[in-house]
Amino acid sequence: MIELRGKAVADCITEDASNKVRLLREKGINPKLAVIRVGARPDDVAYERGIIKRFDNAGVDYEVHELDGNCTQEELNSLFDRVNGDSNVHGILMFRPLPKHLSDEYMKRTIDPGKDIDGMGYVNQAALYSGKKNVFAPCTAQAVIEILHYYKIPTAGKRVTVVGRSLVIGRPVSLLLISEDATVTVCHTKTADLASELKRADIIVAAAGKAGMIKAGMTGEGQIIIDVGMDTNEEGKLCGDIDYENVAPKTEAITPVPGGVGTVTTSVLLRYTVESALRSANG
Amino acid sequence: MIELRGKAVADCITEDASNKVRLLREKGINPKLAVIRVGARPDDVAYERGIIKRFDNAGVDYEVHELDGNCTQEELNSLFDRVNGDSNVHGILMFRPLPKHLSDEYMKRTIDPGKDIDGMGYVNQAALYSGKKNVFAPCTAQAVIEILHYYKIPTAGKRVTVVGRSLVIGRPVSLLLISEDATVTVCHTKTADLASELKRADIIVAAAGKAGMIKAGMTGEGQIIIDVGMDTNEEGKLCGDIDYENVAPKTEAITPVPGGVGTVTTSVLLRYTVESALRSANG
Repeated sequence: MIELRGKAVADCITEDASNKVRLLREKGINPKLAVIRVGARPDDVAYERGIIKRFDNAGVDYEVHELDGNCTQEELNSLFDRVNGDSNVHGILMFRPLPKHLSDEYMKRTIDPGKDIDGMGYVNQAALYSGKKNVFAPCTAQAVIEILHYYKIPTAGKRVTVVGRSLVIGRPVSLLLISEDATVTVCHTKTADLASELKRADIIVAAAGKAGMIKAGMTGEGQIIIDVGMDTNEEGKLCGDIDYENVAPKTEAITPVPGGVGTVTTSVLLRYTVESALRSANG
Repeated sequence: MIELRGKAVADCITEDASNKVRLLREKGINPKLAVIRVGARPDDVAYERGIIKRFDNAGVDYEVHELDGNCTQEELNSLFDRVNGDSNVHGILMFRPLPKHLSDEYMKRTIDPGKDIDGMGYVNQAALYSGKKNVFAPCTAQAVIEILHYYKIPTAGKRVTVVGRSLVIGRPVSLLLISEDATVTVCHTKTADLASELKRADIIVAAAGKAGMIKAGMTGEGQIIIDVGMDTNEEGKLCGDIDYENVAPKTEAITPVPGGVGTVTTSVLLRYTVESALRSANG
């Protein structure tokens, strides 16, 4: 069994991005990410810390715009307009979900698709749905693809079972995998016989968000498993959707949690920010 | 074996739409579809004829805007703006693909989502991708769902194998079926073992566009098959993706071609036009 560690993938993406940044700087272009955060949800703050660390390491600029959790829709939209229209900003990440009194509808409609590096806006969602190449997909979904590519795991013609149909992971990763020529089965809470869908898969992408729900009896032998779960177990520790201890020994390869997909996400954000700057430089 | 004929479905949808139109007329609202056609491709002209017949039967208004096949992008966009902004128009259908010198990008970006009754624009594509309810989906994809509903074929928890990943059918029907709680497998030309994906399905949706490609040896027993193919066989006759003669006797139920899905499409267009008028009437 091979452990598909995210660090090697993230390091490789980060190094490539750093090289591109040097070339861009020679042309006088400084790639920059803008982060918009409303309030201070612990999840958002933790993710932001990860982003800052990654961007600092790569020497790539960022700016964090923090709004009070009680801000008005007008305040948010007006900040968004300013960031969206700023030619020095190449990527925009707005933490969601927003507080309940706010809507992201305006941002989805108006975000510059070239800066929409988390695939939030309608144009990029439609592009992903349409199977367009080089779309900015939601970063965690793209992180799954990056891991498969880095470890040279072929997907074309393979049976991939995706567990979960969320807008953050299940749907985008399914569409990305269809575009990679995989034969994709999308499972969810209403799937009648999940074990039989899992057992026949060449690759399993687990994105259900339920700690250890996929047990040894439900999977096959010699499979590749990508665990996207970021769950909390009974002891309060971070774990994935896979019952790792019992499932991992049967697999050909599996991502650990922590240390797997989650490790790669911020490097995708970095890569996308640099790609956006490259595109604006070229065009 | 039951033949799932489209006519009964289309009649039912048409009758319901006609009743709603009467109520709308009492409020002074006349639902109207605008068709935009560039040039005169035989496929487009034939579809247009079907639409006109359906709308005439239901007593619902339409207007056809024909542009010369050599028209400029500016001429097309300007016509589109006029139709899109006309408050008397409730639904817009633009035949595609456009001639090669024209792009539909502007229309995809600017079409009023409330009038986008063929799910062409980015906002509706994103909504379909997101799993929103009551989205205007591409009419043929929705026709598949209408047939399943009319014949009371349950989809929740069922295994559905979709053959094809096109933007017109495969992708939208897969997403609609996921939203209907089916466990959906998307197959395509790169699928390694199509027969094994077909045999285990409860429901097959065939949208490959290859005459009779699904043979008796590839399917199971007692399945439901929805054939979306509009193909031409060696004798030049309209046929579907299913080798009907040999496959149909093994099924529980199957749509014929012609007389199946294709029969329902224009009634979906009618229903959507009336729904759009209802929504605008309600506010």
